Amino acid sequence: MNFKESYDKKKKLIEDHITEYLPSIKIDSHILYDAMQYSLKAGGKRLRPVLLLSSCEFCGGNESEALPYACAVEMIHTYSLIHDDLPAMDNDDFRRGKPSNHKMFGEAIAILAGDGLLNSSMEVLCSDILKTCNNPEITERKLWASHEILKSSGCRGMIAGQVADIISERNCQSKELLEYIHMNKTAALLTASVRAGAILGGTDDKTLADLTEFAKNMGLVFQITDDILDVCGQVQLTGKATGSDAKHNKLTYPSLYGLDKSKAIIKDLSEKSIAILDKYKSKSMFLKDLIMFLTDRSF
Amino acid sequence: MNFKESYDKKKKLIEDHITEYLPSIKIDSHILYDAMQYSLKAGGKRLRPVLLLSSCEFCGGNESEALPYACAVEMIHTYSLIHDDLPAMDNDDFRRGKPSNHKMFGEAIAILAGDGLLNSSMEVLCSDILKTCNNPEITERKLWASHEILKSSGCRGMIAGQVADIISERNCQSKELLEYIHMNKTAALLTASVRAGAILGGTDDKTLADLTEFAKNMGLVFQITDDILDVCGQVQLTGKATGSDAKHNKLTYPSLYGLDKSKAIIKDLSEKSIAILDKYKSKSMFLKDLIMFLTDRSF
Repeated sequence: MNFKESYDKKKKLIEDHITEYLPSIKIDSHILYDAMQYSLKAGGKRLRPVLLLSSCEFCGGNESEALPYACAVEMIHTYSLIHDDLPAMDNDDFRRGKPSNHKMFGEAIAILAGDGLLNSSMEVLCSDILKTCNNPEITERKLWASHEILKSSGCRGMIAGQVADIISERNCQSKELLEYIHMNKTAALLTASVRAGAILGGTDDKTLADLTEFAKNMGLVFQITDDILDVCGQVQLTGKATGSDAKHNKLTYPSLYGLDKSKAIIKDLSEKSIAILDKYKSKSMFLKDLIMFLTDRSF
Repeated sequence: MNFKESYDKKKKLIEDHITEYLPSIKIDSHILYDAMQYSLKAGGKRLRPVLLLSSCEFCGGNESEALPYACAVEMIHTYSLIHDDLPAMDNDDFRRGKPSNHKMFGEAIAILAGDGLLNSSMEVLCSDILKTCNNPEITERKLWASHEILKSSGCRGMIAGQVADIISERNCQSKELLEYIHMNKTAALLTASVRAGAILGGTDDKTLADLTEFAKNMGLVFQITDDILDVCGQVQLTGKATGSDAKHNKLTYPSLYGLDKSKAIIKDLSEKSIAILDKYKSKSMFLKDLIMFLTDRSF
């Protein structure tokens, strides 16, 4: 199986099962289920859950045991997109070519659908841990994995990054702040996905440290690539950089370093990530290919 | 110690410790901490955490061991108020006599502060369970208590009730829908607070069933009393019922049954709650007094 087939197989596993993890909802509130399902099924790369499953396998674990955690991570990512798109935040009418959640269901339901997905993700984690709570060793690994996910999605991770991103539009723009935003807003949940998968797979400390270093670099590669694509896409469309980030005067790698330097940073980080994985030989093939896949999205 | 002293002692315990459970946040996102703290410290009855602590003690448990769960429940309640007050939801400029969160910090930060509190509540639960995960019996109780809380605050509880409440403004208004809204929007988290406390305190099945019945009745008493106070408050202020619920044409007990019938329902539910607790004799004094306290708030 080549990289693409392997990636798509994992992606399909997530897409086939993710809505099964949503709680059943009475008819009086069924629009809540519809709104959550709408965004969960709206596509995307499913990068975070694929990373979690791959990292679990890399460490010798079983894909099916990691599936609830992979779906929980995707629920968290999806809720953050719904709230990000709201008029008070990025005010985006479209997400992945479809009307954003609040355009389909109204702002109130979109806020509650986001809340519902975050809450559901934790119910998924808690339910899964309850199933094996007579085994302290498994319980500890599952709790540890859950804690990694919750820490990275919260006020010491993703939400902190979003807040700093909003503030950066108004205040001074520094390299340190840019790195803080990217590390928290995007890289934290990506890194936690890799770490949680590894922990569930029974990793040792040294491998976990290597995978964490790999994931942090990869998280930055992912975000800088996204920033560049945003600028380039807008340049192609309009002849000048007027993308949403440029419009909002957001702090990005291209805005601070320029395009060429940003591409050089990506190259450097990718090489570093791959070097970390080299010692794991053929076992690390999928994760190495993933880095190439992320950097090779268009340029 | 009389009821009021006992209640205030528990309330103070919560207020002295709740912000300690917030994660430490780097300076770049410090406004997030300020916004979460602002609403956590904005006062209120602290009914849910007091119920959780009381119920734990009622079942022979230790108050200090239940404290993280009590604070997590109050964080969840607080996040729901922040999101409820948003312009897209109830559009309330004030909460407990102070500017609502979005009036102080802006809508974007208010949305993220709500998200941050919900996420933090789960981090608190997860961290506490991790501490004792080498003991399967304690772990199971803690996981069970956490699951009760998460289930009640999510799409099979509070959020479902909020969605039904929003929809009810537009659609048909029935007794069944009214009960569904109240049971989910308010009674679910109150009931879960009582159940979680009992589970942490080491309850047996029979006592848990009694406390659950007590809590459901009490939850309805609480919400109907709030609805009546809202109508009466507005009548006193303006001479006619133009409270926020009346304004939004929301489905409430007074709007459906009238004031007198609503008061009669409260009396009936209170008596039922107290009857359930009678067999526990003096041990149930605090919980019985609590019902009187809730119904006796103004009329």
